[in-house]
Amino acid sequence: MSKAVTYEQAGVSIEANDEMVERIQSFVAGTFGPRVINLKGGFAGLFRLDYDEKLFKKNYRNPVLVACTDGVGSKVQLAAKFKKYDTVGIDLVAMSVNDMLVQGAEPLFFLDYIALHKLVPETIAEMVKGVANGCKIADCALLGGETAEMPDTYAAGDFDMAGFAVGIVERKKIITGRNIRRGDVILGLASSGLHSNGYALARNICFKKLGLKMTDRITELDGQILGDVLLEPTQIYVKPVIKLLWQYKVKKVVHGMAHITGGGLVGNIPRVLPKDCNAAINKSAWQRHKIFEFLRAKGPVEEEEMYRVFNMGIGYVLIVAEDFADSIEHKLNKYGEKVYKIGRITGGNGKVVLK
Amino acid sequence: MSKAVTYEQAGVSIEANDEMVERIQSFVAGTFGPRVINLKGGFAGLFRLDYDEKLFKKNYRNPVLVACTDGVGSKVQLAAKFKKYDTVGIDLVAMSVNDMLVQGAEPLFFLDYIALHKLVPETIAEMVKGVANGCKIADCALLGGETAEMPDTYAAGDFDMAGFAVGIVERKKIITGRNIRRGDVILGLASSGLHSNGYALARNICFKKLGLKMTDRITELDGQILGDVLLEPTQIYVKPVIKLLWQYKVKKVVHGMAHITGGGLVGNIPRVLPKDCNAAINKSAWQRHKIFEFLRAKGPVEEEEMYRVFNMGIGYVLIVAEDFADSIEHKLNKYGEKVYKIGRITGGNGKVVLK
Repeated sequence: MSKAVTYEQAGVSIEANDEMVERIQSFVAGTFGPRVINLKGGFAGLFRLDYDEKLFKKNYRNPVLVACTDGVGSKVQLAAKFKKYDTVGIDLVAMSVNDMLVQGAEPLFFLDYIALHKLVPETIAEMVKGVANGCKIADCALLGGETAEMPDTYAAGDFDMAGFAVGIVERKKIITGRNIRRGDVILGLASSGLHSNGYALARNICFKKLGLKMTDRITELDGQILGDVLLEPTQIYVKPVIKLLWQYKVKKVVHGMAHITGGGLVGNIPRVLPKDCNAAINKSAWQRHKIFEFLRAKGPVEEEEMYRVFNMGIGYVLIVAEDFADSIEHKLNKYGEKVYKIGRITGGNGKVVLK
Repeated sequence: MSKAVTYEQAGVSIEANDEMVERIQSFVAGTFGPRVINLKGGFAGLFRLDYDEKLFKKNYRNPVLVACTDGVGSKVQLAAKFKKYDTVGIDLVAMSVNDMLVQGAEPLFFLDYIALHKLVPETIAEMVKGVANGCKIADCALLGGETAEMPDTYAAGDFDMAGFAVGIVERKKIITGRNIRRGDVILGLASSGLHSNGYALARNICFKKLGLKMTDRITELDGQILGDVLLEPTQIYVKPVIKLLWQYKVKKVVHGMAHITGGGLVGNIPRVLPKDCNAAINKSAWQRHKIFEFLRAKGPVEEEEMYRVFNMGIGYVLIVAEDFADSIEHKLNKYGEKVYKIGRITGGNGKVVLK
């Protein structure tokens, strides 16, 4: 009779899992507000809506839950390559919460799914630290998560992450883009770099074509280390934008917003544009990060393609009533954002026109 | 000057993505109830809480949101191997909704993340069809999803899935296990097979050790095809259990529940047991599926290890007040579940004792 097979031999270590759970507990608890109900050993995360609280009732007469899910695409591969695991979690949170922000929703909580070749407690702890940091920046609770050890799906050192965010918005305040009209001003908020899109192309250029290493210092990028530039975390726009929306509780001055992800400005702004409007955008209105010029020149990549794949320096767009554009710009500046007036809404057919 | 690089050449096809979105739309829409707000091109999924509806207000005075995330582990690899993509979506939904059910929560909506080597629209459509079917069985809306093409993380033909579920429970009705007491009866609901746990071990035995193929007919399994047995979807217990809980709105007769996943009966029941109670379980009280005996014998796997890794035929457990055990059993039977009285709560130290 052969030696009895155990689960651990088959590739899954229950002890490693227990050690990891302990390590990440403090990061996670740091994101909990008073609305989280902390059940020990619970099968699910619990979050009070505060239905019976006066403040909540005053603000929400007809609340709508808003949910998003996203990953960070092949940026995870760069993190694995560079063995820097504590920032992709910020990207993961950013991708979902910036999406829900577009509808005017305020994030309540977040959950993460991390799958990898082998559970290494220190590595997972770094990843979850990043997710927890992202949650703090976005002002939401890290309510739960799952780590899956799948040695046959993921190669040694490889991993993937998926994130899931739930938020809330008062029904009458859902922002859809329906109110966008000619003359509205398009405000762009600066991105921090590539964010989490276009990495298939960026990696192709940097590694396959140029044969660079993550640790290389790049002259054209002011001598910065390539890995640092490529792993710069995605900007999270939640706090400044939610603060702005609260300032205009009665007046509807923000007519539409867009999170600039895959597809760039030309792909994402049309998702909220009325059919009879165009967005005329002046490309010289803002400063691009050097990484974009570097990728364009080294690819080479056509300018048009660059704008279809990358955010090109603008990570989030607000389309606002003309009369309020200056004061909104001023407020967002005050909240710490770099804001540019990047264009205007004109008559048209639902497209972005780059000039 | 070399040929300009485009995003498609770098491995991501935007057209394939568009085709896929169209294919899956009908499956997804089939899960929508009246509470889903369908925004075309929206950045997020929207779900009305019906805050201002009388029925909802009557049932929920202090609603708590409940959230879960899970994957299906290496069961996805078997689906890829067998090229059968339309049932793992049911497993994906099951893993999360059965978990939230443990707290007494009723699922509201679900989101899925699917990552794979290459976007093949027909394959993704099959996967999402499964997810949508799972949502229908669990009575929740498939509110959103993400598909990620990551050719460098996933090998050709490989994929992974993560699921996220959000539900709701009235605060006073959260089931925690706190009310479990000596004499309570443990009811077990039959599983449909392996569900979504223990696949690392099952695959090891079937493929590495025995060299079987997914298409083999197995004598010990009544001549069934191995792939069919291994891919049998996880039972979703939502409708019968929620119906049961509504029948006992005032009386608290269900003291605790557990979803039997990785760790089996011995690992999952203690998550809800009070520290001074044991769960005494009589292994001969129910019928096991033949797949468990097959794996035990062929591994060979120690009986104790089997109970630590697999559900062994019981997918969900209810711990109920003695006086109501018969009528609860009768009701769950009527709702279509196979129910077994599998044990009793005794004094102890928070453990499961198998006899």
